[in-house]
Amino acid sequence: MRPGDVIQTKRDGGTLSPEQIDAFVSAAARLEGSGWEKYHLTALLMAIYLNDMTPGEAAHLTRAMADSGKRLDLSDIEGPKVDKHSTGGVGDKTSLILGPLAAACGVIVPMMSGRGLGHSGGTLDKLESIPGFNVHLSETEFRAALKNVGLGMIGQTADVAPADKTLYALRDVTATVESIPLITASILSKKLSEGISGLVMDVKSGRGAFMKTRARARALADSIVKVGTANGLKVSAFITAMDAPLGRFVGNALEVVESIETLKGNGPKDLTELSVKLAARMVRIAFGAPDDTKPEALVREALATGTGLDVFRKCIEQQGGDPRVIDDYSRLPSTDATVHVNTARTGYITAIDAEKVGIAARVLGGGRSRAEDAIDPAVGIIVRAKLGERVTSRDAVFDVHYRDDAKLALSLPLLAEAFQVGDAPPADEPLILEELA
Amino acid sequence: MRPGDVIQTKRDGGTLSPEQIDAFVSAAARLEGSGWEKYHLTALLMAIYLNDMTPGEAAHLTRAMADSGKRLDLSDIEGPKVDKHSTGGVGDKTSLILGPLAAACGVIVPMMSGRGLGHSGGTLDKLESIPGFNVHLSETEFRAALKNVGLGMIGQTADVAPADKTLYALRDVTATVESIPLITASILSKKLSEGISGLVMDVKSGRGAFMKTRARARALADSIVKVGTANGLKVSAFITAMDAPLGRFVGNALEVVESIETLKGNGPKDLTELSVKLAARMVRIAFGAPDDTKPEALVREALATGTGLDVFRKCIEQQGGDPRVIDDYSRLPSTDATVHVNTARTGYITAIDAEKVGIAARVLGGGRSRAEDAIDPAVGIIVRAKLGERVTSRDAVFDVHYRDDAKLALSLPLLAEAFQVGDAPPADEPLILEELA
Repeated sequence: MRPGDVIQTKRDGGTLSPEQIDAFVSAAARLEGSGWEKYHLTALLMAIYLNDMTPGEAAHLTRAMADSGKRLDLSDIEGPKVDKHSTGGVGDKTSLILGPLAAACGVIVPMMSGRGLGHSGGTLDKLESIPGFNVHLSETEFRAALKNVGLGMIGQTADVAPADKTLYALRDVTATVESIPLITASILSKKLSEGISGLVMDVKSGRGAFMKTRARARALADSIVKVGTANGLKVSAFITAMDAPLGRFVGNALEVVESIETLKGNGPKDLTELSVKLAARMVRIAFGAPDDTKPEALVREALATGTGLDVFRKCIEQQGGDPRVIDDYSRLPSTDATVHVNTARTGYITAIDAEKVGIAARVLGGGRSRAEDAIDPAVGIIVRAKLGERVTSRDAVFDVHYRDDAKLALSLPLLAEAFQVGDAPPADEPLILEELA
Repeated sequence: MRPGDVIQTKRDGGTLSPEQIDAFVSAAARLEGSGWEKYHLTALLMAIYLNDMTPGEAAHLTRAMADSGKRLDLSDIEGPKVDKHSTGGVGDKTSLILGPLAAACGVIVPMMSGRGLGHSGGTLDKLESIPGFNVHLSETEFRAALKNVGLGMIGQTADVAPADKTLYALRDVTATVESIPLITASILSKKLSEGISGLVMDVKSGRGAFMKTRARARALADSIVKVGTANGLKVSAFITAMDAPLGRFVGNALEVVESIETLKGNGPKDLTELSVKLAARMVRIAFGAPDDTKPEALVREALATGTGLDVFRKCIEQQGGDPRVIDDYSRLPSTDATVHVNTARTGYITAIDAEKVGIAARVLGGGRSRAEDAIDPAVGIIVRAKLGERVTSRDAVFDVHYRDDAKLALSLPLLAEAFQVGDAPPADEPLILEELA
């Protein structure tokens, strides 16, 4: 099979055969001797971007990409295995909350996460702000975590979906990232590799999200449900608002603090509610409950009684971290210096631009422009005044935790533009915009 | 300027700026240090293929590709410089006829041609079947030929449009050849490099052509006229039928024989007429004649008096070939063996499939599947019975000049399928289908 023929099929709007997709994916996993070069792959990626794929093609692509690497078999660990995945947002630390809550309800949560890139944070970076926390467990250690705690939170190992690594790197530099079937395959191939039987998907929609419009978010959620189902997963997908940051804390160590506070029952309403809803859906999928009622009650109980917090404490301990951070936030990295960003006028916060806040956090050193950048776990932003809250010129809208004056200087103009104040509070918008499946 | 941003512009259907096109072309001419890789180029090529280019973009692309290499300055050679280019056909040896005819009428014809590929032949291969004929003249030798003969027929030198070489090689393996703006830029960048002021374009349309439909042929012809004009060329474009082979002889040395016969006034009607019309248009463009009447009379006179043949003789001599081939075809390579392909029934030839005949000639050894293949100048096919001619089962439709039994065996089934016989002659179809500009 010549690469040019495969490319031509998609160029002409045709449907790739399973054999054509297999040839493409196995070349991406291992170019050497495949007869393909990177310049074939990118021509095909652009043809896929512009001419799309059927759900059937995307499903086969996903399976082939998962099969290009190691797929964990967790069948020897008792209990239903369910994970959650989000397309990434600002202040979105739900994984650190719902993972423990779902595990406290008896779900096995084998969570493989990524690092932050661009304006959105990553679960691994947040966890690594906990002194000693090791996200690079061996398979044996990961299995031990799942058996002992019900929860393991690690990075993808090098042998997971190698085809995705090649393709993602090429998409990143050839303007072919934002393709629904390619995003679907990238996400789900890695999730399939975790050995899960169910997945709750949180597709963010809005200014601070990867999917800027509801239509795009819905298209991705729909694709994830179809392709996941075709690959034997039980999948639920939520579309949730990502116009303003989720919760109040943005930054790696800061988000750990807010996650612990939330597990203690002191979290902000938006973050608490979304974490509970997503965890409840994980529980529902895990145990085949007919609706969300009982699962949600179980999750709220785990929150109220502190069993979720206990799981997080055990998780930290199991993965080599210092569990005393739970009760002593001074053990987490912090900056010496803080400044406030105030509003010039009295009124109500009518908008907070999550993307600008996310970029400001990155500029402070808390995020990455390129995958190889180092980050500072201590820096970040606390949103003092959330959407709809009343402020006067004496009130801080943001606290900025910074380390470096030059970086601070870059972040402040972004933050000054990141909020709006009006004479009346904005209408209440729901956080969960839609549910699919 | 990041490659990804250029790609994204075209991916989203936008218009590339001159600076973006320059960055793309200079990377294609010299990847090293450009910040581009081949995988960027092919992603952009696919985006161009699928989202097209404006005439303005194609014009700038063409100029940038020409400027990526050496552009001949022939201003010191007196007389108007006009060339002809064809998109390639089967049995199309018009260059060998109209070049001498136009030169005999006072046009300077600096013809840089290509080699045959796929089912279509190439002027260089045909010329090289003449013993001693050198198509690799130095610039000095080429200038001498133009001064002494008014005609030089050579291959592209390595320093002509290097960006086109890279891009064409990539397009060939990524299914991005058939793009109107990319074809236009590839053809015209090389023609601009010849130092001509006028061009007659012969866009073939039909079964045996690169452009299978009239609409595609018209789109290409229109693009060539617009882009050529924008780059300061006087351009005329013809769309001509390429369903059946042009003339009777297909194969390198065989086509030289038929060209000489045509210059002697003994050519088949279709080949003679097309050569005269194209040469006349070259003369009209060269001297700014108001219509084709006088130019055509001049060309017919060059044919009738043999001055065209004289030019061809001088051209062969000037380029190191043996001019005695003009009067003694036995000095050209030939095969010892010939077989005939007959028809099983009596009737009229209603169709001859140029593409099948072209492939048969290639299979016999007269053409190339890949650019690096060697060819046999002697083999080929003579079309004994042309369209509309009456045949009985005793008549040969094709003579096959072959060297190798195994290759003959591969070509015969193709030739057996390459013609149709009916009870009535087909309607007369014109050879020149349309003229643009």
